[in-house]
Amino acid sequence: MTIPSVVEIMEFAGTFAFAISGIRLASAKRFDWFGAYVVGVVTAIGGGTIRDVLLDVTPFWMTNSMYLVCSALALFWVKLFGNYLIQLNNTYFINDTIGLALFVVVGVEKSLALDYPIWVAVVMATLTGSAGGVMRDIFINEEPLFFRKEIYAMACVIGALVYCMCDRMGMDVFLSQTMCGISVFVVRVLAVKYNICLPVLTGADDVEEKEKK
Amino acid sequence: MTIPSVVEIMEFAGTFAFAISGIRLASAKRFDWFGAYVVGVVTAIGGGTIRDVLLDVTPFWMTNSMYLVCSALALFWVKLFGNYLIQLNNTYFINDTIGLALFVVVGVEKSLALDYPIWVAVVMATLTGSAGGVMRDIFINEEPLFFRKEIYAMACVIGALVYCMCDRMGMDVFLSQTMCGISVFVVRVLAVKYNICLPVLTGADDVEEKEKK
Amino acid sequence: MTIPSVVEIMEFAGTFAFAISGIRLASAKRFDWFGAYVVGVVTAIGGGTIRDVLLDVTPFWMTNSMYLVCSALALFWVKLFGNYLIQLNNTYFINDTIGLALFVVVGVEKSLALDYPIWVAVVMATLTGSAGGVMRDIFINEEPLFFRKEIYAMACVIGALVYCMCDRMGMDVFLSQTMCGISVFVVRVLAVKYNICLPVLTGADDVEEKEKK
Repeated sequence: MTIPSVVEIMEFAGTFAFAISGIRLASAKRFDWFGAYVVGVVTAIGGGTIRDVLLDVTPFWMTNSMYLVCSALALFWVKLFGNYLIQLNNTYFINDTIGLALFVVVGVEKSLALDYPIWVAVVMATLTGSAGGVMRDIFINEEPLFFRKEIYAMACVIGALVYCMCDRMGMDVFLSQTMCGISVFVVRVLAVKYNICLPVLTGADDVEEKEKK
Repeated sequence: MTIPSVVEIMEFAGTFAFAISGIRLASAKRFDWFGAYVVGVVTAIGGGTIRDVLLDVTPFWMTNSMYLVCSALALFWVKLFGNYLIQLNNTYFINDTIGLALFVVVGVEKSLALDYPIWVAVVMATLTGSAGGVMRDIFINEEPLFFRKEIYAMACVIGALVYCMCDRMGMDVFLSQTMCGISVFVVRVLAVKYNICLPVLTGADDVEEKEKK
Repeated sequence: MTIPSVVEIMEFAGTFAFAISGIRLASAKRFDWFGAYVVGVVTAIGGGTIRDVLLDVTPFWMTNSMYLVCSALALFWVKLFGNYLIQLNNTYFINDTIGLALFVVVGVEKSLALDYPIWVAVVMATLTGSAGGVMRDIFINEEPLFFRKEIYAMACVIGALVYCMCDRMGMDVFLSQTMCGISVFVVRVLAVKYNICLPVLTGADDVEEKEKK
């Protein structure tokens, strides 16, 4: 394990924030406790699970019960402080972004450790960071947000590239992690602050009906 | 194989019942034969497939063609006796619950055989029993029922815990299986009979819009 | 590798056509560039990825970056020639069908090479050819077309059976591939030309509400 335990703590903070994001949406849809818990768990661990299945390693949450426990804590947290949370949107946003940064770091490191090339590491980092949210939106039967407000994904891609660049330049592991995490954080904060979006893809607007045959 | 052949017969009964549940919903949505068959197959084998992928073993239905054959029989059954089935709702419900009980038993045994801890076995049992239904609901583009009427999942969790408890107490395998199956059956029947539900999660009802940014 | 390089070229043509199908639908739904790219990638490689995960081999696109590059080219293609493409519907349809034919060939060969029986090869060929489209429709939150206009799947099943039959009769690999590809092509073209559909499954139309408890 090259990840120091301070990262482990941050990883749980990230899991907590991601789980809360799923649980709050599930609650707004009037799911019951168990359903909300499942949506929370899937949001938090879904991306990493798909990554681990593709990399053919044991899904990370099957070797450490803390991820499921952490999601259960998130459930009680929403139950107790749900309405108060709204006023904490900034705190919540920071936790969520810390989580994203860490998921990217873990995704890149797992891929590089298995000797995959950089572009696979970038894909895995993006999957780790954003596939959970896509699964959440499919479960609550809404069109995945991801596809319209992709800044999550953009932050993942940039962060992963920064990590790989640092790694290539022979930087220390801890420094690469830090640089990567900071990049994710900065890109996401700037994107939200200045409301930066990728442009909508145009050029085939009238083809829906024709296409779907 | 520790499972006696009587269980094998019951497993096919369960597959049949699960496949019928998918095929009837697909038929109500006016899917064609092939589409209905696929939804039936996914309902019947989807949960076990996800379990086997996570456990990194060969998906069970790829080593025995009976599961796909059984789903094809279910297709003809619905075609021939579809409307008559409505009056058989109790028979159908019992088959479905037998299937659920067996899926839980198989899920727990596979996990314990691979030396996973109890909580992984509980998760795998729940996945085996309920992920097929979630996939069915996603395929027919409806919000998964699972998240509002979770008593399926509750029965899986309780059944799996009973199995693990029996196993820890040194009980015979067959006795553990029976106890587990009976628990699932009883929880589900009681839940339906007395309309027992988990409460809706409240405490964050107004956050949907704020959350989704 | 028994596949000659002419097949490799055709495979990229297929990937390109499948990616375009996803990107055009995503564009019609006003997804941004990144979202459209992801939908394109998933349409092109989703089926093969599920096949490889079930067969427990490394997903094909993780060993060759050409699939992701090819999807990126498809993105620029749609951006530049989107509206012009509409008049090219026949060209597009032919590419798409070539892609389908190749996906079926690859699906059958991978399964047979791992010593799976014929019926597994048929399932894998169908998954390779059609699961990407199902994932595309789930991502854009529409009911999968697959279940109503299954002729995609029918062509996959027939093509895979032809391959296995040729293989059993001791035919040369290249000849089996060609026969299989032609079968897929002919079935699909005939189906679209004469508007052949499987009949809707009837016999359980009134059960939706009763079923879903």
